[in-house]
Amino acid sequence: MRNILLTIGYDGTNYSGWQIQPNGITIEEKLQRAFQRMDGSIVKIIGSGRTDARVHAIGQRANVVLDSSVPTDRIPYALNANLPADIVVKSAKEVPLDFHARYDALGKTYRYRLHTGKFRDPIGRNYHYHISDELDMWKLKEALETFQGTHDFKGFMAAGSSVKTTVRTIEAIDVQSIDRNTVDIYISANGFLYNMVRIIIGSIVDAAKGKITIKQLEEALKHQKRKLAGHTAPPQGLFLEEVRYLIND
Amino acid sequence: MRNILLTIGYDGTNYSGWQIQPNGITIEEKLQRAFQRMDGSIVKIIGSGRTDARVHAIGQRANVVLDSSVPTDRIPYALNANLPADIVVKSAKEVPLDFHARYDALGKTYRYRLHTGKFRDPIGRNYHYHISDELDMWKLKEALETFQGTHDFKGFMAAGSSVKTTVRTIEAIDVQSIDRNTVDIYISANGFLYNMVRIIIGSIVDAAKGKITIKQLEEALKHQKRKLAGHTAPPQGLFLEEVRYLIND
Repeated sequence: MRNILLTIGYDGTNYSGWQIQPNGITIEEKLQRAFQRMDGSIVKIIGSGRTDARVHAIGQRANVVLDSSVPTDRIPYALNANLPADIVVKSAKEVPLDFHARYDALGKTYRYRLHTGKFRDPIGRNYHYHISDELDMWKLKEALETFQGTHDFKGFMAAGSSVKTTVRTIEAIDVQSIDRNTVDIYISANGFLYNMVRIIIGSIVDAAKGKITIKQLEEALKHQKRKLAGHTAPPQGLFLEEVRYLIND
Repeated sequence: MRNILLTIGYDGTNYSGWQIQPNGITIEEKLQRAFQRMDGSIVKIIGSGRTDARVHAIGQRANVVLDSSVPTDRIPYALNANLPADIVVKSAKEVPLDFHARYDALGKTYRYRLHTGKFRDPIGRNYHYHISDELDMWKLKEALETFQGTHDFKGFMAAGSSVKTTVRTIEAIDVQSIDRNTVDIYISANGFLYNMVRIIIGSIVDAAKGKITIKQLEEALKHQKRKLAGHTAPPQGLFLEEVRYLIND
């Protein structure tokens, strides 16, 4: 038996998200089938966490305890041959048998792509959030700074989530200009609540449009009030970039 | 009656190309319907030229002679409201009644995106040509230089095309590195033969892989031999960037 840690990339456009569910095709399901087609392996896939429908991944991670004769370094090729073009396994690495892709994650980085312009962009439509209004980029960055550090993010979580604690630490925020109309926002944290990135992005967009004030965002954070925060940005701009572990890559 | 010149962008992934045809959905057809939905206008759309299935456009041009009360500057909004998300009208401009988007085109620029890497990239899969082999970029650029200037491109045209002359002038070639694995090749010419860009790209990729020599490409060009040229690169890496006219934008 080997415990294999996979790095997975996918275009989430045509999926109902990561996790297997009765209605809708998921990435986990496609991966599970690829293992079965590889050499009949029936595996339980342990993802680092879920991603929603239409959310993408550059570096999602998952581990599987595997009883197979396929050498570890051949596993990506064997799986990719059995996966659709919008999912790719980028690496496979043997890890200790007790390694768990979710419990052992130290942190993650998400990227969110914003696109401004009078007209929509057909090529990028599934990979960014198009905003036709002008955005005040200084205000956007100022709003973003509000979230830096350790906070109770309960006000920035989708209703109905159940977690032990809603305290998370945002370790790094980076804004990168891609072109005149496109900006990528990187958010690294020790963990994320359900819809946390999308509510943060919706909030800073609302702030950059002048719809809500920085003061209000601070209040939303301080008093954990979802109603004071901004809207939930749409899924297609979100990319799971990286999941960090103690194990070296 | 006004003659309106449109600038159109589209994601060609889900279309059977630009031109209306009995089987398959086309961009021209979607545009024609958008005019009809706008205010009942039945128009003939004159494109600057066709694009193939899965080929994209950033700046396709087309003109329509229109009898409508919609002000010219509102036409993009009125059409976009009636177009799917993967087609966008970016501008509308009144031009002389005898202006013809195909006959009056002075030249065009196409872009072709190449992506190298051990594994496919799910996010870019519909927008680049993925090559898993290493490419010799110096050889690629050297091969590309072969095509600079005025030549008879008969050897770089899909079989069965009928045109008056197969002589074209490549006015500019530009190679732009996007990231470690992605390169964009811009080719500007006074006109292009059917599949000309895709055969040029296939040829330089074959040269960069060491499959054919620069000498052989020169022979293919000199003696107009399709068999000496390289393969036809796939459609999804191709973008019609710009169509040039005497009329200022």
